Amino acid sequence: MNEAALTLEGWYALHDFRTINWSLWNKADDEEKAHALDDLQSLWEQWKKTENDNLGSSVVYSIVGQKADLVFFHLRETLEELNELETEFNKTAFARYTIPAYSYVSIVELSNYMAKPGATGDPMDNPEVQARLKPILPKMKHICFYPMNKKRDLQDNWYMLSMEERRGMMRSHGMIGRNYAGKVKQIITGSVGLDDWEWGVTLFSDDPLQFKKLVYEMRFDEVSARFGEFGSFFVGNRHTDESLIAMMK
Amino acid sequence: MNEAALTLEGWYALHDFRTINWSLWNKADDEEKAHALDDLQSLWEQWKKTENDNLGSSVVYSIVGQKADLVFFHLRETLEELNELETEFNKTAFARYTIPAYSYVSIVELSNYMAKPGATGDPMDNPEVQARLKPILPKMKHICFYPMNKKRDLQDNWYMLSMEERRGMMRSHGMIGRNYAGKVKQIITGSVGLDDWEWGVTLFSDDPLQFKKLVYEMRFDEVSARFGEFGSFFVGNRHTDESLIAMMK
Amino acid sequence: MNEAALTLEGWYALHDFRTINWSLWNKADDEEKAHALDDLQSLWEQWKKTENDNLGSSVVYSIVGQKADLVFFHLRETLEELNELETEFNKTAFARYTIPAYSYVSIVELSNYMAKPGATGDPMDNPEVQARLKPILPKMKHICFYPMNKKRDLQDNWYMLSMEERRGMMRSHGMIGRNYAGKVKQIITGSVGLDDWEWGVTLFSDDPLQFKKLVYEMRFDEVSARFGEFGSFFVGNRHTDESLIAMMK
Amino acid sequence: MNEAALTLEGWYALHDFRTINWSLWNKADDEEKAHALDDLQSLWEQWKKTENDNLGSSVVYSIVGQKADLVFFHLRETLEELNELETEFNKTAFARYTIPAYSYVSIVELSNYMAKPGATGDPMDNPEVQARLKPILPKMKHICFYPMNKKRDLQDNWYMLSMEERRGMMRSHGMIGRNYAGKVKQIITGSVGLDDWEWGVTLFSDDPLQFKKLVYEMRFDEVSARFGEFGSFFVGNRHTDESLIAMMK
Amino acid sequence: MNEAALTLEGWYALHDFRTINWSLWNKADDEEKAHALDDLQSLWEQWKKTENDNLGSSVVYSIVGQKADLVFFHLRETLEELNELETEFNKTAFARYTIPAYSYVSIVELSNYMAKPGATGDPMDNPEVQARLKPILPKMKHICFYPMNKKRDLQDNWYMLSMEERRGMMRSHGMIGRNYAGKVKQIITGSVGLDDWEWGVTLFSDDPLQFKKLVYEMRFDEVSARFGEFGSFFVGNRHTDESLIAMMK
Repeated sequence: MNEAALTLEGWYALHDFRTINWSLWNKADDEEKAHALDDLQSLWEQWKKTENDNLGSSVVYSIVGQKADLVFFHLRETLEELNELETEFNKTAFARYTIPAYSYVSIVELSNYMAKPGATGDPMDNPEVQARLKPILPKMKHICFYPMNKKRDLQDNWYMLSMEERRGMMRSHGMIGRNYAGKVKQIITGSVGLDDWEWGVTLFSDDPLQFKKLVYEMRFDEVSARFGEFGSFFVGNRHTDESLIAMMK
Repeated sequence: MNEAALTLEGWYALHDFRTINWSLWNKADDEEKAHALDDLQSLWEQWKKTENDNLGSSVVYSIVGQKADLVFFHLRETLEELNELETEFNKTAFARYTIPAYSYVSIVELSNYMAKPGATGDPMDNPEVQARLKPILPKMKHICFYPMNKKRDLQDNWYMLSMEERRGMMRSHGMIGRNYAGKVKQIITGSVGLDDWEWGVTLFSDDPLQFKKLVYEMRFDEVSARFGEFGSFFVGNRHTDESLIAMMK
Repeated sequence: MNEAALTLEGWYALHDFRTINWSLWNKADDEEKAHALDDLQSLWEQWKKTENDNLGSSVVYSIVGQKADLVFFHLRETLEELNELETEFNKTAFARYTIPAYSYVSIVELSNYMAKPGATGDPMDNPEVQARLKPILPKMKHICFYPMNKKRDLQDNWYMLSMEERRGMMRSHGMIGRNYAGKVKQIITGSVGLDDWEWGVTLFSDDPLQFKKLVYEMRFDEVSARFGEFGSFFVGNRHTDESLIAMMK
Repeated sequence: MNEAALTLEGWYALHDFRTINWSLWNKADDEEKAHALDDLQSLWEQWKKTENDNLGSSVVYSIVGQKADLVFFHLRETLEELNELETEFNKTAFARYTIPAYSYVSIVELSNYMAKPGATGDPMDNPEVQARLKPILPKMKHICFYPMNKKRDLQDNWYMLSMEERRGMMRSHGMIGRNYAGKVKQIITGSVGLDDWEWGVTLFSDDPLQFKKLVYEMRFDEVSARFGEFGSFFVGNRHTDESLIAMMK
Repeated sequence: MNEAALTLEGWYALHDFRTINWSLWNKADDEEKAHALDDLQSLWEQWKKTENDNLGSSVVYSIVGQKADLVFFHLRETLEELNELETEFNKTAFARYTIPAYSYVSIVELSNYMAKPGATGDPMDNPEVQARLKPILPKMKHICFYPMNKKRDLQDNWYMLSMEERRGMMRSHGMIGRNYAGKVKQIITGSVGLDDWEWGVTLFSDDPLQFKKLVYEMRFDEVSARFGEFGSFFVGNRHTDESLIAMMK
């Protein structure tokens, strides 16, 4: 058996994509709309409080195209809290005007492929590591989310490579990412055993063209070219509570 | 022809995943809700009785994310009983507020890959074997379910390997599982000829991170790396009748 | 070009899988239900008459799990009759409470892979062959249906093998089946040019575990291991008109 | 680059598959039904007139099984006319009782693989070629439709073969077809750049068993065995306006 | 790592495919229809103004077959504007009669595979390049849209080829395209990191047969034969506001 990569995990993650049922919304009267938006606003206040208390983090973005209209991206300490967030949302008057579109369950992950050689001590005691495992989500203008696997297809089988081969490729991959430092912020969440792909990748940027530049450049790198297997890509624009409520009016 | 693995079978299994129709539920009045929850409670009492009589076992978990809201996981002596459970559920007032999301039909299975060499006598007479074939399901905090196949893809064809090769790989695989003893409990159900994948794997744990650790570590093992083919992963939190009814209120 | 297998064909087959719309059914009043069940009963009487007249055969089974609730499996002399059966069903009051779930169109088939060497005369004149091509369907307790292909994938291409290679593998395959004689009855229907897979396999048994044992054992045989490609598996329990009507009450 | 096959094109083709909404139809009153069938009859008269004027051709068949209930297969001079046919149908009272099931957009095609060597002059001036490119559709009892591709999978890549190899295989393929002359009539429509597969194949016969015999025999031919990739198969029985209206009553 | 292709990007693109809900439309009264068409007309006026101001471009085409009835194809400077276009459309009375069918998010792209050797200076300063990156969309009679990938399958892996190999194939590919100059106009939009395929290809022509001729001829070219992976093809006819409103009446 090949040496498994070691991983550190932080907050659990839920990407909750919803489509707005515009037919229903357009037929709602002012009172129904106000009630729905009040419910949404109340939830949002709670999410902000959780983030202020450093017990989790939540952001909301629009999604461009028909795959969804909104994504609610939540980080929380436990799987139970993610479940409660879903139930609370589903009980709101606002939820009635939305249709589930896609979701993703994962957990913030760091792997030892990129660990600094010679580091000693428990990395979980390292405040920098802790900050990366339990991050306050960026409030940048754009989001890009996609799930992915490492391929296991005949001679292109990532999991049959030695640790050295995998580490070498991951480091070269990391180099590309480094060129986008300051332009793109990336959160990797692991989902083996939790959802249908092995990882979720969430990118944030103030310029959505950087998502394309980064992902395209990486595609020529052996780790993506030979071993990357990608799900759907979702891209969108940031919503504050004010902007979302304004949009619905 | 390669030597087929021999298997022992116990109780039939139904994983019944349901999504709650929240729009309909939120519009129901108190009487309708009470009636629906009473129906659910009555069924649940029956399931408990069946388990107490050691004639089967049932657990209920929430599912995190949009794939489903609930899974009802039942073990029973016969396929007919599973069918009756479905029909009884579908006739309840509660069922009206649920939408079928996914299901899985299988049977608890043990294979001779892991049989102790030198064992004599009919294993079906062995009480330990009987307990594993007709298990009372764990009441741990979290569940993880996924269906899987062994691959048959050109040179990566599990069923073209000799019994010795398969047994060797399965034993090394079992070693990894053993490291999770006490942390993760696993029920393997076979579904060749019964449902669309060859096996269902149901894991139970008080710490859902152990699902990820276990499945990820195994992925580097040749039996998974080269031969594992996986369906959707469902993960959730345990419900008692009290907690489910509280959630719906 | 490789020598094509020769086939004999008998009755056309329709597997008509339906899901019960339980929400609608549960809301129907007694009169509506009685009307629906009367319509169903009338059809069923016709099907029995057709079978008694040896002009076709029909059986009804429940399906376990969410893929469907019922399968109506009909054999008839012509494709037109199958179409009429569908239309008659769709016009009943009962049909209103069902939702199409899956269907399969094929024709009972025997192939010359298994033909007795040295046999002379037109096999269509052989009463035993006629009985196998136009069979009265078994009334055993359980059914298993799945569609399948022979693979055409690079070096695993069934249709590029010589007749001798194919015949050799099919005979060894048939040997396994013979071990299940008396326990499992099998109807092979061909569907090349008629539906999306090349064959439908319908198994009948009084013990559903035999479906699993048979299909699993065969999977280790080269013809399945290298060349078998399988669709969805449907498994269920027999319904008489009495048992189905009782279930709906 | 390999030499591309040359093709001649005739009328544009639309295969418009529809499912009947039986629940809605069964609830309609006599007046509503009469109105719907009148609308259908009017369209049909137009289609007949177009065919009589040799400006196109249209046939209607039932489809056996749940994939659809009806197929309207139209040939017309332009893509605009096909679009108008759709819109006209969608505006009828009959359309309300149908649900789109599948459609296919293509154009009648002849390729130079089978061209007679030594032929001179523009084939478009040849009346026999014109008749094949703008055919009045057969009124045989049964139809079979399926879309298909030529495979591009590693060493099984049709488009990487030389013209000579492709022509050789296509001629041997044509030989099989010739054995079915008089029994099966075939219309090939090309759909590269127009729909999701590269070709549509529509077969007509008075004996539906011939569809199975033809397609199965061809599957052992290298061009199908190694390079054929097939979509869904639809099979059905011919409708005249009288028979369709009778069926709906 | 292989040298990544360099790309230039222009306007963001949204292909918004919609199906008309004909049942609902046919039931609407004259006032409702007029209101819906007025809303549509107002949007269209805005789109024309944006195009006149050279701040974007929009065209509308019908789609033949059941995949969709209409495509709204918009180019705009930012992702935010595309999102606003969607929301504005969804709030119209017309949107109520449409159902989302498919969408595609991308950005107009030019790659350096075809760059003129020896060119100096920033290509973004070149007015010809600017005109191609921010094009006013053609108003030709027909449209063809399809998304595509470059394959990454074992030995057929585009991203593992050297820049020289890729450039050589792309130039030969471009040669074919050049033969269609004047007959077909092509807009390439990149979607790596933005949507599920790597590129969208939109073709315009006054003769839809040219779409088939072009795409088929290219399929024999190595870059398509070995490396092209195609999604759904959508083909249709141009709508002006007058023709669309006339069609809906």
